[in-house]
Amino acid sequence: IRKIMNVVISVAKDTKKLGEEDPRRIIHSFKVGLAITLVSLFYYFDFFYAGFGVSAMWAVMTVVVVFEFSVGATLGKGINRAIATLLGGALGVGAHRLASFTGEKVDVIMLGLSVFFIASSVTFIRFFPKLKARYDYALLIFILTFCLISVSGYRNDEVLEMAHRRLSTILIGGSATVFICIFICPIWAGKDLHNLTANNIEKLAIFLQGFGHEYFETTNDKNQENVKASIDGYKTVLNSKGTEEALVNFAKWEPRHGKFRYRHPWDQYLKIGSLTRECAYRIDALNGYLNSEMQTSPEIRTKIQESCTKMSSECSHALKELALGINTMTSSLPADPHILNAKTAAKKLKSSLKTGLWPDTDLVDIIPAATIASMLIEIVSYTVKIADS
Amino acid sequence: IRKIMNVVISVAKDTKKLGEEDPRRIIHSFKVGLAITLVSLFYYFDFFYAGFGVSAMWAVMTVVVVFEFSVGATLGKGINRAIATLLGGALGVGAHRLASFTGEKVDVIMLGLSVFFIASSVTFIRFFPKLKARYDYALLIFILTFCLISVSGYRNDEVLEMAHRRLSTILIGGSATVFICIFICPIWAGKDLHNLTANNIEKLAIFLQGFGHEYFETTNDKNQENVKASIDGYKTVLNSKGTEEALVNFAKWEPRHGKFRYRHPWDQYLKIGSLTRECAYRIDALNGYLNSEMQTSPEIRTKIQESCTKMSSECSHALKELALGINTMTSSLPADPHILNAKTAAKKLKSSLKTGLWPDTDLVDIIPAATIASMLIEIVSYTVKIADS
Repeated sequence: IRKIMNVVISVAKDTKKLGEEDPRRIIHSFKVGLAITLVSLFYYFDFFYAGFGVSAMWAVMTVVVVFEFSVGATLGKGINRAIATLLGGALGVGAHRLASFTGEKVDVIMLGLSVFFIASSVTFIRFFPKLKARYDYALLIFILTFCLISVSGYRNDEVLEMAHRRLSTILIGGSATVFICIFICPIWAGKDLHNLTANNIEKLAIFLQGFGHEYFETTNDKNQENVKASIDGYKTVLNSKGTEEALVNFAKWEPRHGKFRYRHPWDQYLKIGSLTRECAYRIDALNGYLNSEMQTSPEIRTKIQESCTKMSSECSHALKELALGINTMTSSLPADPHILNAKTAAKKLKSSLKTGLWPDTDLVDIIPAATIASMLIEIVSYTVKIADS
Repeated sequence: IRKIMNVVISVAKDTKKLGEEDPRRIIHSFKVGLAITLVSLFYYFDFFYAGFGVSAMWAVMTVVVVFEFSVGATLGKGINRAIATLLGGALGVGAHRLASFTGEKVDVIMLGLSVFFIASSVTFIRFFPKLKARYDYALLIFILTFCLISVSGYRNDEVLEMAHRRLSTILIGGSATVFICIFICPIWAGKDLHNLTANNIEKLAIFLQGFGHEYFETTNDKNQENVKASIDGYKTVLNSKGTEEALVNFAKWEPRHGKFRYRHPWDQYLKIGSLTRECAYRIDALNGYLNSEMQTSPEIRTKIQESCTKMSSECSHALKELALGINTMTSSLPADPHILNAKTAAKKLKSSLKTGLWPDTDLVDIIPAATIASMLIEIVSYTVKIADS
């Protein structure tokens, strides 16, 4: 019994954490509940007034399947589903009618062949990367509707009526979903993407800020644990590609909202994202030296300390300005002087290395920093583009 | 007209490329076509013998929705769907029966509340990361079945019959799908994962092999383009995390096949994968120096050339041995001497740097290589574990 209690408590804790991490999850759950209940009641009452009959269940099904976390995803799925049902239904009715002109036996063979042909070819089409990204669901529903309608054993006029009923119930379910999704506490994928991009850049900034102190051990031991934790934040940036691509796809479906126009240049976010990731790869390499076994002697460290700390803190400031610039959607001019500072520090360090005044074992962490500085310049050029738009 | 022709030709080319890249895609498309046709015909004939009635369409729907590219994904979805339908149906029948004991008005309110409660809470449960990874589809279908059955306006005995019919048609569709998926040219996610892991390691090896020559420009200009292309292969490794995780999830559903037991330690692949990626991050940093603007003078290069070329080629050999070891599932002993060689080369280089015989501007590309060497040792220790299993 105690074991069960423990499980219950840990589950409750997880639940609380999930809710606190992102309260929109709770709101989303209630929204889904609301939408399903409304449409279910529509389905329930319809039974007595016998308007749509069994077809009314398609409305419920549409709500359950189409309602996604963000507005973009919901709209995309809804539009996919509506168009695919329309096309698949039309083609299905066509195939059904064509088959009904022929004899009893030929009929079946024709339908079987057409189903086989359509299903195989559309399944293959689903492998095209571009279509897969945006219209995968539509292609699936297209196959489904086509098969269900063309093979149904109804008479001609019945088929047309069934297709019509199915389409209209799906439209009812879909529009209820979209309505609730957009007008009750909407969750915009575009906004999420925007914040994600800014946050990722900021995480890199936090790392660079901590790195100088951490490496040269200028901080007290007391809050070292804290620093360590904040430093590791950049690790989520390394694998952010999938999330970003999904959000961009969703965002493309969204109408104008908040600060974003309908045709906001979402692809720019992918570019910034990939630059941020490349920067994060360098930072990961840099991070390796914090934990590596080969330690440099303190004398050498102090010699490079000034320039290195300067570089990493200037880069950090620049990145923070960039993140802020993205957040407020303004041009990122305040970042430029920081980048210049970082560059001059890097140059100074390089020239002091060239004079060869001291033995050098661990210059390693400098030139990656220089790389980061040059990366930053690239990022800036992109960010200016974005900030303009 | 010419424009349309061009579009047609380019689409045809894309299609050919898709098919050639992975011929299993074509086979998969035909399998889906076959399964859908079979089940559609079952649906078609059922209309005349009136066994399942409208419920027979659930068989078609199950095939369309459940049939995925790999066996693991199909099995996972099929099992999810079957269990969720069973549970959702049972709960739905229960709610329906409970509501029918009460009066006309209370009835509706009770059903509405229960649908709202179930839909909201299950939607929230879908956010739990562990459940999302493996049972997301089941939770969705659970909501769907529960709503459709509990809210349907049928009488009590009808509801039970409907639930029973729906479950059995879904089982028919699901088992047809699984049967065709497993017994006609199966595509195993486990095997794909295994090959992906080995290929990724090999891609890193190819980079390291090319890197030495490329950096010190010992190759002829003629085949430089070739080398460049093969070197860039590692870039796909950087973002392989999503694919790997999906494949591991699918692989866990698969029964014993080929060289893999049922409970193959799939999670080990995730560990190897993440180590491979960390190695790839370093390599990406290293690659930056190939294209960087700051060039070192040739004299300095020649001094470090020997050790560096040695290190990168030894690492490359070791990685190749590891990839081969994974492919053939043998212990990777032949890799060990290469790693030892690489380590001694790294040590030699480091000590020669310490003596400070020459000005040093670009030692940078050495210590990352040393890092890679130490990474390799970690990878080896994991690989040995795998090879044993």
